[in-house]
Amino acid sequence: MRSPVFELTCELIRRASVTPEDAGCQAVIGERLARAGFAVEHLRYGDVDNLWATHGDGAPVLVFLGHTDVVPSGPAANWTSPPFEPVVRDGRLYGRGAADMKSGVAAMVVALEDFARAHPGHAGTIALLVTSDEEGASIDGVRRVADEFRHRGQRIDACVVGEPSSKQRLGDLVRIGRRGSLTGRLAVRGVQGHVAYPEKADNPIHAFAPALAALARERWDEGNEAFPPTSFQLSNLNAGTGADNVIPGELRAVFNFRFGTASSASGLRERTEAILRGHGIELGDGASTLDWWLSGEPFATPTGPLRRAALAAIDELCGMEPELSTGGGTSDGRFIAPLGAEVVELGVCNASIHKIDEHVALDELERLPVLYRAIAERMLA
Amino acid sequence: MRSPVFELTCELIRRASVTPEDAGCQAVIGERLARAGFAVEHLRYGDVDNLWATHGDGAPVLVFLGHTDVVPSGPAANWTSPPFEPVVRDGRLYGRGAADMKSGVAAMVVALEDFARAHPGHAGTIALLVTSDEEGASIDGVRRVADEFRHRGQRIDACVVGEPSSKQRLGDLVRIGRRGSLTGRLAVRGVQGHVAYPEKADNPIHAFAPALAALARERWDEGNEAFPPTSFQLSNLNAGTGADNVIPGELRAVFNFRFGTASSASGLRERTEAILRGHGIELGDGASTLDWWLSGEPFATPTGPLRRAALAAIDELCGMEPELSTGGGTSDGRFIAPLGAEVVELGVCNASIHKIDEHVALDELERLPVLYRAIAERMLA
Repeated sequence: MRSPVFELTCELIRRASVTPEDAGCQAVIGERLARAGFAVEHLRYGDVDNLWATHGDGAPVLVFLGHTDVVPSGPAANWTSPPFEPVVRDGRLYGRGAADMKSGVAAMVVALEDFARAHPGHAGTIALLVTSDEEGASIDGVRRVADEFRHRGQRIDACVVGEPSSKQRLGDLVRIGRRGSLTGRLAVRGVQGHVAYPEKADNPIHAFAPALAALARERWDEGNEAFPPTSFQLSNLNAGTGADNVIPGELRAVFNFRFGTASSASGLRERTEAILRGHGIELGDGASTLDWWLSGEPFATPTGPLRRAALAAIDELCGMEPELSTGGGTSDGRFIAPLGAEVVELGVCNASIHKIDEHVALDELERLPVLYRAIAERMLA
Repeated sequence: MRSPVFELTCELIRRASVTPEDAGCQAVIGERLARAGFAVEHLRYGDVDNLWATHGDGAPVLVFLGHTDVVPSGPAANWTSPPFEPVVRDGRLYGRGAADMKSGVAAMVVALEDFARAHPGHAGTIALLVTSDEEGASIDGVRRVADEFRHRGQRIDACVVGEPSSKQRLGDLVRIGRRGSLTGRLAVRGVQGHVAYPEKADNPIHAFAPALAALARERWDEGNEAFPPTSFQLSNLNAGTGADNVIPGELRAVFNFRFGTASSASGLRERTEAILRGHGIELGDGASTLDWWLSGEPFATPTGPLRRAALAAIDELCGMEPELSTGGGTSDGRFIAPLGAEVVELGVCNASIHKIDEHVALDELERLPVLYRAIAERMLA
């Protein structure tokens, strides 16, 4: 018999919950937490399963946040052992989701069970929120649950995201924020024609060229203490019929901002549109068009009770002072932070995530529920 | 019984000689001219048929130039009558090639037959050159024949291109030159990566943006008496994987110059490469690449015996003083002019060419061989 966190991680890996499938993971988790005295609620939106389990009541509300979905395995034949069969080799547990983040979910569940049993009369509320749509569209997952919480007036004071944050060793990096992501889709209208008669056409490539150069050289901000400077990248640029002698009638461009709190999404939108207009690209009906998609606002958590608790627990259990980072991609923390919560992201090493032969080190797996429980005890015991 | 030029035009339209097919047109023409005393030579290169027929010898050498190939008809159902069945309606002859340029070829053949019979001992040489590759790649057609002429030392003093040059009425416009066409194919190398980590990538869209803006705003020359200013147009611009979160590894651009004698092809190439290098785009092995294709040098024919003969014939037979133009696309005249020939382009109205229900006015069709014969008589009788 292995430890509870090992057994639960293996049980979750065996369920091939490729996004947005949950494959029964949340039923297992819900039954366990209900037995430990939690109030359990299943929130299903569209194809997505979400689970909300609470113990205790009132403030402060400490939430552990994770996801049961995983990215596809790719060709199973490329794996040393089948991706949805948990296997131990050389002190590591292998399988899709071993690091991102079924080990984290299992550790949170075990930590919450242990905490509730040890501290039945703890202060405030301890809770678990998991979704099956973190790796996919991220629309009917935590984004939607956060809307529901806003509607209900559900407060959240602190949130530990169990994503794999560590680089070399458990606890060497804690995320204290994430950049926002804002995407623009531009269609520049022109008039198609023959290259021999440019006076009868209006070339959208030529029309866009000065604006493109201005956008590419713009410095959007200088960053701040929490974030590096905002980055702007064009990912797709397409115009042309394929024929060499035809001036195209339209140009399409897709670009993305990764931005910190030194800029706002609305400010970046306004400045982009001003640069376009200032270089002759008119936007609106019948003219060129620009559609925006804000996939997440940036958030940065200032020093507070949660960060202090996490740093103390890491110091005690891992003997380390972690790097505090706002780098990397996005996570579901972006939906919880706007509710007013202090958010930290802390989990196992991420070197193998989304790859063939994904794995977690057994010693990290065993220490993770201890670490999460230590944070909860510092906050609520 | 209709006139010889009408009958021959119909016979040529019935042969569906979609480029580079000749479909037997040149065999018909060669037999007729041989019967009229011409020396006839068939020059086949690759898939392309070319015919060279001469009468008389020595200087001056006057060549009538045309093509037997046509562009595709498009869906035959869109035509009022089938595209390869010549039909007369409302004073017009309909069919693919009726204007571009089976009427012109038929008129040249009839004019040459009549001229040779009327003037068996004429001065110099009168000749016909036709190809089946004017609408297509234009590699194994007149381009290749001109190389052969250069090799043989075949001189050409004057060349009438029978392309449809007129706008409203036969003879209202004569082309006395054509712009050159120079195409560039640029591949800008970058390094692919994730938009969240631009420091690990090198975005070729951003790298190219300043050079693109500089190329689009450059004034290449001011034109001269013979030509409008050189025009530069980007026809195709493509970068991106389709995914919004991936910085592409390469950008591809295709652009085209239409240039007069105020610039040279080599000068435009050098200036383009200097603008690219001046804006950080390095060209060469392992870096970005730029391939050039010169499809034709510009040519402009100064006043000479042929232009004088053509203007006098138009004045006499059409009662008009034509506009002298160097506009429009390219024609096979670009390959003959470099041999030292004076070149004029004169033919029927071009409003319907390359379109559904292509046609020629019957009155223009009947007058065209008279016009060509009048030019020959002024030059060689």
